[in-house]
Formats: sequence, C-alpha cells, structure tokens
Amino acid sequence: MAVYTEVTDEALRAFLADYSIGELLAFRGIAEGVENSNYALKTREGDYILTLYEKRVDPRQLPWFLNLMRHLVERGLSAPMPVPGRDGAALRALAGRPAAICTFLAGVWPRRVRAAHCGPLGAALAELHLAGADYTAVRPNGLGVAAWAPLLEACRADGEGVQPGLIAELDGLLSDILAEWPAQDALPVGQIHADLFPDNVFFLEEDGRPYVSGLIDFYFACTELLAYDVAVCLNAWCFEADRSFNVTKARALLREYSARRPLSDAERAALPVLCRGAAIRFLLTRLYDWVNTPKGAMVTRKDPLEYLYKLRFFALANSPEAIGA
Amino acid sequence: MAVYTEVTDEALRAFLADYSIGELLAFRGIAEGVENSNYALKTREGDYILTLYEKRVDPRQLPWFLNLMRHLVERGLSAPMPVPGRDGAALRALAGRPAAICTFLAGVWPRRVRAAHCGPLGAALAELHLAGADYTAVRPNGLGVAAWAPLLEACRADGEGVQPGLIAELDGLLSDILAEWPAQDALPVGQIHADLFPDNVFFLEEDGRPYVSGLIDFYFACTELLAYDVAVCLNAWCFEADRSFNVTKARALLREYSARRPLSDAERAALPVLCRGAAIRFLLTRLYDWVNTPKGAMVTRKDPLEYLYKLRFFALANSPEAIGA
Repeated sequence: MAVYTEVTDEALRAFLADYSIGELLAFRGIAEGVENSNYALKTREGDYILTLYEKRVDPRQLPWFLNLMRHLVERGLSAPMPVPGRDGAALRALAGRPAAICTFLAGVWPRRVRAAHCGPLGAALAELHLAGADYTAVRPNGLGVAAWAPLLEACRADGEGVQPGLIAELDGLLSDILAEWPAQDALPVGQIHADLFPDNVFFLEEDGRPYVSGLIDFYFACTELLAYDVAVCLNAWCFEADRSFNVTKARALLREYSARRPLSDAERAALPVLCRGAAIRFLLTRLYDWVNTPKGAMVTRKDPLEYLYKLRFFALANSPEAIGA
Repeated sequence: MAVYTEVTDEALRAFLADYSIGELLAFRGIAEGVENSNYALKTREGDYILTLYEKRVDPRQLPWFLNLMRHLVERGLSAPMPVPGRDGAALRALAGRPAAICTFLAGVWPRRVRAAHCGPLGAALAELHLAGADYTAVRPNGLGVAAWAPLLEACRADGEGVQPGLIAELDGLLSDILAEWPAQDALPVGQIHADLFPDNVFFLEEDGRPYVSGLIDFYFACTELLAYDVAVCLNAWCFEADRSFNVTKARALLREYSARRPLSDAERAALPVLCRGAAIRFLLTRLYDWVNTPKGAMVTRKDPLEYLYKLRFFALANSPEAIGA
C-alpha cells in the first residue's frame, strides 16, 4: 500500500505550474508499490504517474534511475518516461520529497501468473538488457552478493525467532553460494532491473494472448550480471502457490529470452547458483524487514519463508536442466 | 488504504465481458476509501471506478445506494453513475464480492480545507438534498441517534483505556444530546449523504477558485433529518488542525447551503444539538473501531479523540450564532 506522503492541493498546483502538461483534472493515490508514494495524475494532456521518493531511496541515485528510464524508452522499450518540467529537469521536489512525473503505461499486472505470461516476460527482459547495453553509467548493486553476509549477520539475533534452525540453515546455504558465485568479469554485465516481479510488468491481450505493454519500477535497477536478472525472474514468476517449480513456465521464459539475447554456456552453467543467490537476496531483505518492522506498523511485511522454500528447491535442483535451461 | 480483495486478470476479463465499455486498458488499485476495495479502470471507452463491496456493507442495501446515485445523477448532480452490464444490471459479482462499475469523476479532494472550499461544499450539499427529494425509498440511518447508546455500551469496558474518564464524560454528553434531540417529524427529512468528509468531495478550479466537480462514496447515505447532514459537514470541514472552530468556514458553508435550501427556524435552532450528535456519532464509531481493531491489523484506525474535542466545542458553543448559523 503506497501513499506515505500526502500532498496538499496548493502544493500540487504549485508543483504542476512548473510543467507544460495542462490543467489538473484528477489526482488519486495508487495502492501499489511498497517503496514510494504513487499518485495517478490526470491532466487535459493525458494520464501520468507522480512518484514521491520515500526515505528508502537515496536521492543521489535518482538521476541514474530516471536517465536509465529515458534511455530505455528512447530505445523502444515500453517503460515510464520521465516528464521534464519547463526548465528541462525531470527530478523535482514536492512535499519535502524528491518527486518526478512519468508517463502512464497501459496494462494490467498479472495477479495469477500463467505460462502464457512467461514467454513475453522473458522476451521483455532480453529487450531491456539489449536496450540498456549503451547506457554506460554504472550503479553497483547494493543488494548484490557482497551484501548478503552482512544482511545475514544483521538478522542473526532475531532470525531464530522466525523459525528455529533458520540461521544455521542459511549459514550453510550462503556459504555454498559464495563459494560458487561467478566473478563479476566471468559473465556479461549490464543494466538489470533486479526486481522484475509480476506487479512490475503490465500486460494487455491480443486475440486472447497476453503481451507485455510495459515495465515499471526501476528503482532497484543496477549494473550487475545480466543472467542474475533472469534468475530473479525464475524465482518471481515460476513457482506455484503450492511451492512447486513450474518448469514449463521457466522454459517459456528462458526460450523467449534466449531468442533475443542468447545465454552463453558460462551463463547457462551459472544459472543454478544465480537462482540460489536471487532466492537468498529476497529471503534476507524480507527477513531483515520482518525482524525490524515494529508490530502494528502500517506496512505489509512479506513472508521471508516463501523464499526459503525457493532457495531449498534451487539447492536441490542444482543443474541447468533441472530449472529448464 | 483500500484494496482488500485482489482480482485476478482472468476474473476481471470475464467480469468485463458482461459490459459494453470496450477493451481493458488499465486496472490499478486506489489507496483511498476505507470500507471497500476500489480500482481505477481504464478501457477504450474511458475511465471508470470498479468497487468491490467488503463485509461492512450489507449487500441487501446496495440496490438502494446504486439507485440513489443514478437518481441523483439523472437530476444533474455530479456523482458516480452506476454503469449497467449488457443485461441492464449495475450490481454484479466479482471475486466473491458484490461489485459495480461507476463512471469516473474528475477532481481532487482537498487535503487542506480552505474557506474557499466551504461555500461550494454547502451549495453541493443543498443540491444533493434537493436532487434526492423525489427519491422515495427509505433507508433508516443505522448509525443515527438510536444507535449511540448501544455503541457507547459496547465501548464501556475498553474505552477507559483510551482516556481515563472518557466513558463518564460521554455518558453525560450523550444524555444531554438524547434529551434535546428533535423528533424525526419535527424537522425536514430526506436522503442525506451522512459521510460528506473532504475525501468524498472533488474540486476543480476555475480562475483560481475551487468548485465542486463531484461527490462520491454514498454508502452511508440514508433517510434522515436533512440538517443532520449539515451538522456532519460542520464537524468535518470547519475545524482547524489546532482544534479551533473556524466560524468563517461555517458561515460560508451555511450561507451557500441556505441560498439553495433555506434552513427553517426549527432547523437552525436544532443545529447545535445536531452538531453534538454528529460529533458523538463519529467519536463512537471510531472508538468502537479503536478498541476492537487487533493491534497490527492492516487498517488505519482514526483517532476517536479528535471528535471528543469537537463534541466539547459544540457542548460549550451551544447556540446557532456561536457556530455561524
């Protein structure tokens, strides 16, 4: 749920006066996105999304994100296009927060992922990686492999309370991941989304078949092993509610990805450990939030144990074939 | 925050197939409204709001509400118009909930009420009362004067924990209200909104002056003393953040209301006790929710004590003149 910062009408009107997007017609908080405050904004010119960046986002990183989004849109990707103000700047301030207006994207994110979504998702992911190839500014992955041991340490005292034996199990699994993790120069590196979950991918349908109409929420994007983004998607899109891994979905995702950006032999060989890495990344950040969120706080705490089951699956299914590659 | 029921894309598409509103383009949860789940829905035809009615709303009451909204729109009020499906029915079912699509209203609700809002609000309230005059179906007010003593009883055990002395103070204040409350046949009765808070009133501006572009959320509407609706608005619109009563706002509200529907002498004389009644109504329902909401539940509990201060004000300022009438 996602309106953390309320905007008064006077502040909004003053803010919009610095844009050339026409008269304000509507302004409604959007109940999606967990990091920032998002508003649907309608003017005489059309529909937009106004985002206020909350405290989890480092304001110094915002130009990198907004420039990446513009770069991707200019290369044909359907992503939110930052709208500049009259002075040319897209990153502005509102209600004491950094703020930006982006174009509105049509589409609906899939509440229930079907195999028919996973091919188009794989294709869109490859197109994102290709479109980002000539965006040269580097942003290290703050939640990458180097962050996982410190995150586990930060959860050590309280993590046992979530599930007995959890920390010892994670010690063993993380130790294996770190031992097998590919060097940053061993695999292709580029701009990745790093958080391409179903609620960040909009679909429309043509003749009953879903196609990707847009990708959103680039605020975890970073410069990282490209195949790690594939591993994030295998975690986020290919498990069923009963915790089973749907290899049909994985194959569709990987087939359409590879048709646009073929995975090298080294990437394919590394995919299992990358999947374990992606699983432990989401497990650890969710666990950290779980043990550090005050009871009764008005935020949705996501269940960290969902990712323990995914991590265990990938630890057992430790070959490219077992995960559809 | 208001998306309690998630809707799968398949269920949504099947639901929309029963309407003639064109192809689905977007579907986003709205972070507003506390009783129901609301989604912004965009099709090739335009913008709509899809509402799923949650468990606080009695499904048997929904036809009364939807028919009232249609009636008001047909008489020129700007309110959400229920959109019928192909079979003519506006009230349908989705994701196991009663559901309806209504037209989208332009406008922005005022996060900070100014005196310039209160005149137009008073005018819109009078127009609502006039437009409802020939809607003859009766819905008793389930949260009217007869409900307050039972509500106070339900809070008696836990209310002291909210503020020592609170229950004894409310016993005294409620006893006075009940003694002075006008008989249902002593004042004009009609269809009232009963919850016309700022987040239910949209404004746009013309030459820098706000005008009401629409009224929403009729799900507390009922057949009640018309002047009680004025009293609700005096509570909801005319207090400042420092708890002071802004009589300029009250006068603007009452002047523009009376210009369209003059208050009778009896209504004007009753306004102080109606204001106390409206204050204790919101105080008691908030107090009930406060003591009955589990800690950590994902709902915003509104502070009941805000209305204690309003109630105390109206108990002291116990003349029409003191409240701007």
